[in-house]
Amino acid sequence: MKKNVLIIGAGGVAQVAAFKAAMHNDVLGDINIASRTVSKCQSIIAGMLDKKVLKRPGILVAHELDATDIEATKALIRRTRSQIVINAGSAFLNMGVLRACLDTGAAYIDTAIHEDPAKVCETPPWYGNYEWKHREECERKGVTAVLGAGFDPGVVNAYAALAAGSYFDRIDSIDIIDVNAGSHGRYFATNFDPEINFREFTGTVWSWQGRQWTGNTMFEVKRTDDLPVVGTHTTYLTGHDELHSLSANLDVPDIRFWMGFSEHYINVFTVLNKLGLLSEKPVTTAEGDEVVPLKLVKAVLPDPVSLAPDYTGKTFIGDLIRGTHNGVERELLVYNISDHEEAFAETSSQAISYTAGVPAVAAAILIARGEWDCHHMVNVEELPPVPFIELLGRMGLPTRIRDARGDRAFDPAEFRRERKAARSGA
Amino acid sequence: MKKNVLIIGAGGVAQVAAFKAAMHNDVLGDINIASRTVSKCQSIIAGMLDKKVLKRPGILVAHELDATDIEATKALIRRTRSQIVINAGSAFLNMGVLRACLDTGAAYIDTAIHEDPAKVCETPPWYGNYEWKHREECERKGVTAVLGAGFDPGVVNAYAALAAGSYFDRIDSIDIIDVNAGSHGRYFATNFDPEINFREFTGTVWSWQGRQWTGNTMFEVKRTDDLPVVGTHTTYLTGHDELHSLSANLDVPDIRFWMGFSEHYINVFTVLNKLGLLSEKPVTTAEGDEVVPLKLVKAVLPDPVSLAPDYTGKTFIGDLIRGTHNGVERELLVYNISDHEEAFAETSSQAISYTAGVPAVAAAILIARGEWDCHHMVNVEELPPVPFIELLGRMGLPTRIRDARGDRAFDPAEFRRERKAARSGA
Repeated sequence: MKKNVLIIGAGGVAQVAAFKAAMHNDVLGDINIASRTVSKCQSIIAGMLDKKVLKRPGILVAHELDATDIEATKALIRRTRSQIVINAGSAFLNMGVLRACLDTGAAYIDTAIHEDPAKVCETPPWYGNYEWKHREECERKGVTAVLGAGFDPGVVNAYAALAAGSYFDRIDSIDIIDVNAGSHGRYFATNFDPEINFREFTGTVWSWQGRQWTGNTMFEVKRTDDLPVVGTHTTYLTGHDELHSLSANLDVPDIRFWMGFSEHYINVFTVLNKLGLLSEKPVTTAEGDEVVPLKLVKAVLPDPVSLAPDYTGKTFIGDLIRGTHNGVERELLVYNISDHEEAFAETSSQAISYTAGVPAVAAAILIARGEWDCHHMVNVEELPPVPFIELLGRMGLPTRIRDARGDRAFDPAEFRRERKAARSGA
Repeated sequence: MKKNVLIIGAGGVAQVAAFKAAMHNDVLGDINIASRTVSKCQSIIAGMLDKKVLKRPGILVAHELDATDIEATKALIRRTRSQIVINAGSAFLNMGVLRACLDTGAAYIDTAIHEDPAKVCETPPWYGNYEWKHREECERKGVTAVLGAGFDPGVVNAYAALAAGSYFDRIDSIDIIDVNAGSHGRYFATNFDPEINFREFTGTVWSWQGRQWTGNTMFEVKRTDDLPVVGTHTTYLTGHDELHSLSANLDVPDIRFWMGFSEHYINVFTVLNKLGLLSEKPVTTAEGDEVVPLKLVKAVLPDPVSLAPDYTGKTFIGDLIRGTHNGVERELLVYNISDHEEAFAETSSQAISYTAGVPAVAAAILIARGEWDCHHMVNVEELPPVPFIELLGRMGLPTRIRDARGDRAFDPAEFRRERKAARSGA
């Protein structure tokens, strides 16, 4: 049964979601795009028509919406008869959009955790501060809410679930590694809104180690790995959404997130941070004007969306999992490689938006098909991973695995053999 | 005859000038300090009284003055019966203060070249754009105007004049080297107003090479020298005032200015400059506010005056001169070493303000004594260097020389022997 979709937001991730939803409008129905700036939605739709991405003749509509206005959001959901809402707007909007879904019964999907603009790096687990407070209401109302259904969080959670149910009988550690080995050709730029981007790095870095939350500072802990395709990269222990659900849902003592940064990126970040130019607190100039430094930095940096046409190279995102299988030590790397230029050719966005936007649409398709329409609130690792990973493979995000037996495409048949072996204890 | 002094400005250089003028109020008369913010002048005077710096009982007065108001400046000169004006205010004020001196007959002294706020690094020679346009009027009215009487420009010009008249019969090159080997203990700070400081480095670097103006970019050309006391330092070809008069007044094919910067300083400067954060042109934030990036950077950096109490280490400023003496190749280094903590103990300012402020007062004393009261407009190299250098030695800025015969204090008797030998061609 086809289900109408409402996409909230008009940035890079929303654009990818819109393109991909249109490519699957045999399963999904009308595609609605809503943002405070309706011209951005219209321009996404113009791009979709240019590229003729609709699989079947269908409806594409741009809407002006201030998603902080919950009543307006509910009215739009009802008016468009949307049964699935993909929230690809600002992380500051999540709780309002979730409320609109709870009140209208629409399924809710997002790709990043809720944030309060006034708080940076809150007490873990982060999902406990906002999202999970609505779990009981979702359950009672039978509303499906899939939290963090991008790539990281999202696909990396499914990779963890995949490993936990088959390739391992005991997992000792999950290290999620995210490397953008691409180049935008500018002196310096962030890949998404600088205000959100820098927030990830200015507070405490929380990781799950020895079954408890451990605090570090950014760039304090690093590792170097020889990764498939992209080669050797140094990554840094970083606070990230998925740790805050995986630590609760899986019985794994060490779960860490590692993000790759060039020395140049770290240098520029450090200079700006040390000088106080990443602060959200206003300073007063000699002329008596109040200025928020971070807002000026945002104004002088390139608009992230403007980087896409020139982006070259690839991204690597994967889970490095260590543990035992039938008592034997095992190491498994489950990962995806995406290409910036290929992503741009298909969706007019670079691979960072692509890897976040495609999984959200895959989740919507699985909800529409019933496989993930669970009628309660879940994080991705609580849902069956194989249909998701298989579907993503067909949608442009293929999964590969590397272990002692070599590097190969993910094979569901192999997975089923592993799972059977794990269950029989063989 | 005692001459009353009006000091314009209330920053670090003005403070040193006020302290030093008070220490010589047997030659100078009343000491007047004028600034837009009269409380800064009052606080300088309070510091002078605390340190009991007046040599004899005398008059110290703080005045509120907007020195862009020429009529107000003239009125203050007349009311205070000032015969010497030391302009230690912003480089943007020079031409207005000079006009006030031309109209009242007071002698004019400054320590830095005039700048137009709207222009960065104008066509050389810089003095030709503003100051020298008033040469004829100074001559006609008999007004003494000593341009650039700080350390650099100033004392380094006197060092060049010293060498040209005695130690050399032909000079091939003068390399002026300025190294602050001190530490303020902060992550990053400029030693004077960031708005003026960064202007020196964002435009074309002009140097005098092969008897013509040569353009480079900042940090493009560097040299490394083993310098007395401060040791080995890398310095960078930098545009600077004194080149623009020495090239006209001395017959020397190569005259260059080299300033020392740590790699850390260059890194921070480069990041800010590349991101556009040193721009004086306003940018518009996402919220629609207009912000001048450089004014925000100034607001987040430490106030230069606040650095003085914690400053440690020394400064080196000198002229490395190469040429021939009676046909024999010769190399001579004429230099001063100043100590930040000693400067602070004496004048509550660090050595960078000290080295700029003391020579301006020495020039005022020489004008009061008649030795430099030349009744026209000059740059320092046009005046007799020895009385200046000798006086500076007694005022806290001793000169040393280093050549093939070793490193020693400057000795006027040696200078006279050299000059005699040069004149006789021996």
